[in-house]
Amino acid sequence: MCPLPANVILHEVVLRDGIQTETRILSTEEKLNLMERLVESGVRRIEVSSFVSPRLVPQMADAEKLWMEMKRHENVLYSALILGRRSLERAMECAVPHVGIFVSASETHSRKNSNRTVAEAQKEALDLIGKAKTAGMEVRAGVMNAFGCAYEGAVPIEGVMDLIEDYMKIEPDELCLADTSGMANPRQMKEVLTRVKEAAGETPISLHLHNTRGLGLANVWEALQQGVCIFDTSLGGLGGCPFIPGARGNIATEDTAHMLHEIGIQTGIDMNRLVGTSRDFEKVLEKDFPAAVLHLPNAGSCDTQ
Amino acid sequence: MCPLPANVILHEVVLRDGIQTETRILSTEEKLNLMERLVESGVRRIEVSSFVSPRLVPQMADAEKLWMEMKRHENVLYSALILGRRSLERAMECAVPHVGIFVSASETHSRKNSNRTVAEAQKEALDLIGKAKTAGMEVRAGVMNAFGCAYEGAVPIEGVMDLIEDYMKIEPDELCLADTSGMANPRQMKEVLTRVKEAAGETPISLHLHNTRGLGLANVWEALQQGVCIFDTSLGGLGGCPFIPGARGNIATEDTAHMLHEIGIQTGIDMNRLVGTSRDFEKVLEKDFPAAVLHLPNAGSCDTQ
Repeated sequence: MCPLPANVILHEVVLRDGIQTETRILSTEEKLNLMERLVESGVRRIEVSSFVSPRLVPQMADAEKLWMEMKRHENVLYSALILGRRSLERAMECAVPHVGIFVSASETHSRKNSNRTVAEAQKEALDLIGKAKTAGMEVRAGVMNAFGCAYEGAVPIEGVMDLIEDYMKIEPDELCLADTSGMANPRQMKEVLTRVKEAAGETPISLHLHNTRGLGLANVWEALQQGVCIFDTSLGGLGGCPFIPGARGNIATEDTAHMLHEIGIQTGIDMNRLVGTSRDFEKVLEKDFPAAVLHLPNAGSCDTQ
Repeated sequence: MCPLPANVILHEVVLRDGIQTETRILSTEEKLNLMERLVESGVRRIEVSSFVSPRLVPQMADAEKLWMEMKRHENVLYSALILGRRSLERAMECAVPHVGIFVSASETHSRKNSNRTVAEAQKEALDLIGKAKTAGMEVRAGVMNAFGCAYEGAVPIEGVMDLIEDYMKIEPDELCLADTSGMANPRQMKEVLTRVKEAAGETPISLHLHNTRGLGLANVWEALQQGVCIFDTSLGGLGGCPFIPGARGNIATEDTAHMLHEIGIQTGIDMNRLVGTSRDFEKVLEKDFPAAVLHLPNAGSCDTQ
């Protein structure tokens, strides 16, 4: 066990993972407004979009427009998710400073998600990472389904380690382990992180967690003790499957920040403003978000208790 | 850190904490049916009722009838919550084998909840525990608001320890720490349990946790590592304030059992049956329960992944 980090970076994914399956397509204006409100709330890292076929993900169709029109604050890191060669070219045209490039550790998911075997997808990812680095981008190299797969069940750690070790040869700026289907448990979190840390050396490790089975913050607590200090979170806990009533999505920015503040870890987040941003965004999407602290009468003051 | 326990006991509180603030008053028949379904689902410890004024908690008005009519399975421990002298007498008349007797660690909450100072409430509790033990009952001696108070905020650990040390002088069968308002965080959990374990010696420690701020299972994960192996849980995660939309109640039996099974800890719970019981009870109460795994398409098979 490491000492707990003094500071944690929250990588805000509401504009990408959070809304990508929402049927209501947001206007670029609404996205720009949300992004500014997030920055005012203290968020310092934002995943702005993926570059993906508008036919597959209509919510991301305005990616270029968004990157063109948005304000780029100096103290905020803006990121995009890359899905293939054309996607990276589009990101380059938009002068995206930070990209995420992921490979699935599950053969079935890899074929369904990218129509490639894991080996093929990894070969392409390594090529794309090289190109992105050459273009001066910062790169997070990620493993999807690192803790389990909705199709295959358990995902052997050896497969995850093979991908991580390949990534390390080309020196990404960050490694990201994604619990794509929310299947990680904290005991497994400890085991996987212990292995990945050995391979990662000084390279920071980030986690992309879903709260599908209510284990998101239990996994965060374990990961903090393993020294992880970058977590993907979504405003409101959005990002769940829209067809499951009450389904939890990504771990909620509000709940994660609240836990970290209670533990004594800084995030830079202003809870009052963040809760206000989230409540206003609930009105835009016309639904209650799953974040737990959001609906408490004193949600905004959760960090002063 | 202790080795993780091989087995955990879930103390099911849906019939008491879970439904006590529900406006729909269940019939004794419905409660009896739920209790049988819980036993069929593998639940081995059930808090059947409190003995409290029917005026204050109308849902508990049939406590005597329930204790009289229910089937007492040999391998199930049935418990009641005691609130004062008259309450204990009623429990004795019902031949209740296991009782919980609690004192709040917060002066404000103690006065509001029992119209007594903490010192007065503790004096009465010690007297009641003595009487219960003389009557042959098993006793869990508990501290409410052990991790924080909705009225007072932080609750100093010294006050909690004073109560625990007093309890230990009269040798209760179990100590219970209650996070009454769901304010505990896992770092604090570690600190408080480290202290309480020193005082408790061989006496088992149980936890009564609420998921108000989404931290319930993070606290369970920490507590498991501190050797705790008895947790109060409520079917569906019921027990939240009925006036807060989406508020989470007690930690959900489904979610806790699922996490424990994934970690490799036995509970005796049959997830398929438990999920069936919970879904049927959702129909009785005509609402969606907050438990996370309950609404997954494969909820029942969560323990086979």
